[in-house]
Order: sequence, then structure tokens, then C-alpha cells
Amino acid sequence: MLNQQALYYGKVKSGIRQLFEIGREKKRIFGEENVFDFSLGNPSVPPPEEVKAAFLDALETQAPLSLHGYTTAPGDNECRDAIAKDFTERYGEEFTRWNFYMTCGATAAIISCLKAFVTGPESEVVVLAPYFPEYRTFIDSCGAKTIVVPPDFESFQINLAALEDKLTVNTRCVIINTPNNPTGVIYTRENLEGMAEILRAKSKEFGHPIYVISDEPYRELVYGDCELPFIPRIYNNTIICYSFSKCLSIPGDRIGYMCAPSCMDDVDDVMAATAGAARCFAYVCAPAIMQQVIKRCAAVRPDLAPYEFNRALIYEGLTKIGYECVYPDGAFYLFIKAPNGNSKLFSAMAQDENLLIVPADEFGCPGYLRVSYCVDADMIESSLPVFQKVFERCKNR
Amino acid sequence: MLNQQALYYGKVKSGIRQLFEIGREKKRIFGEENVFDFSLGNPSVPPPEEVKAAFLDALETQAPLSLHGYTTAPGDNECRDAIAKDFTERYGEEFTRWNFYMTCGATAAIISCLKAFVTGPESEVVVLAPYFPEYRTFIDSCGAKTIVVPPDFESFQINLAALEDKLTVNTRCVIINTPNNPTGVIYTRENLEGMAEILRAKSKEFGHPIYVISDEPYRELVYGDCELPFIPRIYNNTIICYSFSKCLSIPGDRIGYMCAPSCMDDVDDVMAATAGAARCFAYVCAPAIMQQVIKRCAAVRPDLAPYEFNRALIYEGLTKIGYECVYPDGAFYLFIKAPNGNSKLFSAMAQDENLLIVPADEFGCPGYLRVSYCVDADMIESSLPVFQKVFERCKNR
Repeated sequence: MLNQQALYYGKVKSGIRQLFEIGREKKRIFGEENVFDFSLGNPSVPPPEEVKAAFLDALETQAPLSLHGYTTAPGDNECRDAIAKDFTERYGEEFTRWNFYMTCGATAAIISCLKAFVTGPESEVVVLAPYFPEYRTFIDSCGAKTIVVPPDFESFQINLAALEDKLTVNTRCVIINTPNNPTGVIYTRENLEGMAEILRAKSKEFGHPIYVISDEPYRELVYGDCELPFIPRIYNNTIICYSFSKCLSIPGDRIGYMCAPSCMDDVDDVMAATAGAARCFAYVCAPAIMQQVIKRCAAVRPDLAPYEFNRALIYEGLTKIGYECVYPDGAFYLFIKAPNGNSKLFSAMAQDENLLIVPADEFGCPGYLRVSYCVDADMIESSLPVFQKVFERCKNR
Repeated sequence: MLNQQALYYGKVKSGIRQLFEIGREKKRIFGEENVFDFSLGNPSVPPPEEVKAAFLDALETQAPLSLHGYTTAPGDNECRDAIAKDFTERYGEEFTRWNFYMTCGATAAIISCLKAFVTGPESEVVVLAPYFPEYRTFIDSCGAKTIVVPPDFESFQINLAALEDKLTVNTRCVIINTPNNPTGVIYTRENLEGMAEILRAKSKEFGHPIYVISDEPYRELVYGDCELPFIPRIYNNTIICYSFSKCLSIPGDRIGYMCAPSCMDDVDDVMAATAGAARCFAYVCAPAIMQQVIKRCAAVRPDLAPYEFNRALIYEGLTKIGYECVYPDGAFYLFIKAPNGNSKLFSAMAQDENLLIVPADEFGCPGYLRVSYCVDADMIESSLPVFQKVFERCKNR
């Protein structure tokens, strides 16, 4: 007699995790250098040197009881002040510590928002395919329905007509993720303005706000001069869920935040409900020493050069072979079309050659695959002939 | 349109938290030295020196990408091995990494167990008064009913007759906490054996196991030669929820574990369900750097001398004045009876004298108060005349 939902999520592993474990086994058998593992979104660029310096400074200069003690639930004041200052400088608006609530990474922020916005089993949460598969776990765990908006296969921007079509009186919120995992696409200002217009009209029609949960772990991973619009200024009822995982290459350390901008409708109630949700999930506070690290690193940016180098290498390499690839402006993923149209079969064929790429079926986008290029450039180089071989085998079948 | 449960828990603060905030305000007005704050259970003994050494060693010797990278969801293998080794040495049984699942403190462990054990709105979770008030929040958040077993006011051991009386076919689990917050009492072997006998009989009668969630953050805070029985050996269907918060004085850093001993019925399913629950709550993994610290400190024990000194000081001081006190064998709390029988009124009268003690009403035990003696011994000394004054004012009313 156990909870069936919990049992299910404990027994059914994610496809990414399964592939990762296959990779580990293959490396053991064939040797590290003979396996081309593009399965995980783990940063491959070491943390900026400021991170270690921040740990050492905190450990050497702060009284241990306060350094390792509970913070308030929303988080250390100076940590939130540092983030607010960075926001104010970048986005030209007034943010204060009151807008921020520190969390154990973006996932803790997302589930706290979901719980706050879901009002009962009729509640619907809209996700835009292709989407991060764990969204479905979190929505399910909050007792709501996941509503999938199909992709715009031309641009992988938000499919506005399809979005409008999926909104109902039960829609509580829409999760967006830009730069996007798994496509690397950045939603344009025009596209986001289109979304905002639809959401405003529907909120009015239904008589309650439709919130946007903006999942932004890749915010600092934007290449070239591509614009990453600041969503709350386009749509006020946006709550930002952020993680320092990708920006500072510290995904295991679990530190991020929720940011509810003051321009939100009922911002005080939204903040109370998201805080109450975090309390209900027993989060207590975000790791205290990590808050001290972030206090010192809130304005530190990652070294993008290695990712940008990889992006060119893999994009050019694969398009030259003949793969259809979505051009990525951010994050560290390349989204490719299965040359045979069947992503699971293609992934299995690649696996036979020790090439590990994730079919996007569980991202809600069958026929495509995700290539994580947060890897050594050398591995990309040596994988290209393998990509070529699988491509040809695939065409000849 | 927001989730009413989340909104409630975001707006209604715990009594402890409210008193703590009153204390902060009083300190601002009257000066630190004139406020006697016994409200919070924050360790007052600095972390053992091994903690800082462990941080520094991890930062200096480990490759940053692996140090700060995701661990698997159950946790770093070497960290779990270190804890398993400590268990095997202490409890004389075979524990391996497979029995442990690292969590963000005991609260994350408890809520993951609750979710795993609760099967629907009819589910009942039994707590033993006086109990940690947040249990109620977590049970409520998992959609179950909280069933309170009244105290045995003589001994503050488990009230076995009352426990038996409260068990029904809907009982899913019982949360126990020994050494106890707020009484400092340690349940005796005999008492626990009595509990086990009842639970075994009722499990059989109802045709499904009644699990024990053993919340053990105070396990290492045991004074003198008092025995702390190892619960799984007395009742096999026990899952241990542990936190290093109190033992290593690092409550803010959020690190603990669930331990499901191999002797549990259906241990594989229990572990899958608790892991699935942690996934549903978006925990991802326990903070990676903290797992590295624990790998190095799994067998480190706290310096109990300051707490033991405080215990004698406050227990003797208050009983001499005339307070009725429960003798504490562990943790860092003293449980006292309100001399006027009304704990809220007594707490308010104490507050007027800048003496902050928590009425145990929200612990399910009105008429009593909790005095947290994890404070400076000097503050205890200088608080005694104030305790005397409030006691006399109280008797003369």
C-alpha cells in the first residue's frame, strides 16, 4: 500500500537518464574515448574562478554559526540585494530583495509556482513543445493536467495560433523556456509580444490572470548579438524561475530563485502563495552557504567562448553531413531532425555506434533529437565521422 | 485565483517564527543583552573543525565540474558509503549505500516519506503530542489527515493506550521523534517495544504495514549514559529521516538522508516510492558540495559539553524557582509547565519582561512551553531572575 504516483516516478526513469546510464556502461566496456555521449545537459565549462573565491571568502571571513545557520525562508538579505542590484542595472527597473525568493535551483522554483497557481484537479498547465520532460512530472505531482501546445516546425518559436487554441477557462499558467531546452532557440520580441497579447485577451475573457512561469536557467547562455527580451516587461504576470546551475556551472549545488516583479497583478498574494508552496514542499531555505556564494557572484557571467566554439563545430559539422538542424542562438543544445523520420529508431542506430543522442519524443516532439554540445570539443571532432556513418546507414535503409 | 492551501501557509506564520521576529524587534529597541531569547532551535555550538576542513579539502582537491556537478538522485556513492560504514560500525548490521538516499535535510526526507505512504484523502498520519508543528503542514500538503495522540503527562513517553486507540484501517504511518523536540525526552526501549507490538498487531489486523517515520535530527545529542535505542531493530517497518543540522551545526546548509533498512517489508518498493516522491517535489539531488562535506564528516560527533552545561544550568535554575520541568535526556530543549496553567498567557507575560519562550499549543500540548537552551550560558544565567520574576507575578494573579 504505497502512493502509486510516487511509485511510478520512482520506477520509471527519464529517457535522458536511461541513455546516460547506457553511456556509462558503454564507457566501461569500450573505453571513455570510444563513446560519444551527447545525452546530458551538464555544463562542461568549469565554474568561473569567482565561485571558488566566494566559497573561500565565506569560509574564512564569516562566523561559522551564521554562515551555516538557517536563513529566513525567502533567503539572506544581502544575497537577495545583490541579485536585485544586478537586475536593476540590467533591466533598468527597480527591483529589491522583496521581489526575490531563494530556492534550491529552478526546479524548486517551478514546482512552488505550479502549486501556487493550481487550484484543483480541473486546473490546466500549458507547456510548449518541445518542452523539458520533468515539467510533466511536476504538473502531475501538483494534481493538474498538462496541456501541450504543438511546435511551429518552421521556426520553433511559440506557435501562437496553437497556443490560443489550447487556452481554456481552466488554464492557470503557461511555462515558457527561452533560451530553449532542447532547441537552443530564443523567442523573439515579436513572438513574445504575440503571446502576451493572446494571454491578456484570454485573461480578460476568463476573468482571472493566466500566469507565465518563465524558466530561465539558460538566460546567460546567449550567443552573438541575439536579443533575449526581458519577459516581465512584455507580459506583467510573469514569474521568473532561475537557476545558477548553467551560468556558474554549479548544477549539483542547487541554488536559484523565484522573482515576482512588482508589476504583477496581486503580487503580494502571488508571493505569499509561492512561499507557502515552498513551505508545503518542506524546502525550509535554500542552502545557506550557496546563498553566500551567490551574494558574491550575482553579477558574474560565464565564459561563453567554449560553448560558442562547440556550437559552430557541431552545427556546421552536422549540416554539412546533411542533417537538418535548428540554428541555436542560446543554451548548449542542437535540435536535429531524424534523417529517417523516426527519432527512437535513429537514436538506437546511433547507440549501436556508441553515439548517444536523446530522442525528443518525451520532449513532446517525436522525429527530432537533442544533441547536448556541452562536451569536449575533441569529442565533437571525433564524433563527426560517426554522425556521418549513422546518417548514411539511415538513408540506405 | 490562487491555491488556497499555499496562500494559507504563505500568510500564516508559525508561532515560533512570530516570537523570533518579536525578539528581533525587541533586541533593536532594548539592546541584545536585555532580551532573553529562548525561541529558536538553532545550534549554538560552532560546527566541529572537521566541517571547515572538509569544505576546504573538497574545494582544493576535487575537479570543480565534478565537485559542483549533479549527483545521481540518491546521492554520491562515496558519501552514502561513508554513512553506511558509520551505521554498520554503530549498529552492528550490514548497511550499504543502497539503504541511503541523500536529501535537503530531514524535512525533505519526511515529506518524501509522507507522499510515498499517503494513498488518498482518507489516509491518516499519526503524530504524538507534543510534536514538531510543521508535521501538520507537510501532512496537509500531502492531502492526508493529521491524527494526534495525546501525551502521557507523567513521563512524556509514547502514550501507548492512546496510540492504539487512534490507529484505524486508514493509518498509513506514525511519525516519531526521539530525542524529542520539544520535550528533550528519549523514548525508552520498553516504550518503543510496546509501540512496535501495537503496530505489528494492527498492521496484521488491517492487512497492510503501518510505517514508522523516525525523525532523528537530535540523534547525536544524547547526554550522560542514556540509551537511544536503534528503532529499525525494534520495529522493522521504520524509515529513518536524518539531518546533519544539529549534529554538525549546519542547519542552513540543508543536508540529510532517508535510510530504509533492508529488513523493511517491500523495501525496494518503499525506496522507489520515496525516491519518486522526492522527484515529484523537484528535489533533483541534495546539494553536491554538502555531500562532499558529509563524505568526510559522516562519523564526526558534536561537542556536547556546552549543551550539557546549559542543560544543568537551566534545569536546576528553573526547578529551584519552582517551575515543573520535564527532565531532558537529549536534544537542547526544556519543556516546562506554565505556572498559571495557561501557556499563551504565560508566554505573553514573559514577553513583557523580554523573555521569549514558545507556548507548546501548536505542538499539540497547551499548558506547556518550550525553552530552547542552545544559547549562550551567560544568557541563561542572567535570565534566571527574570524567570523568577515572571513566576512570582504569575502566582500572585
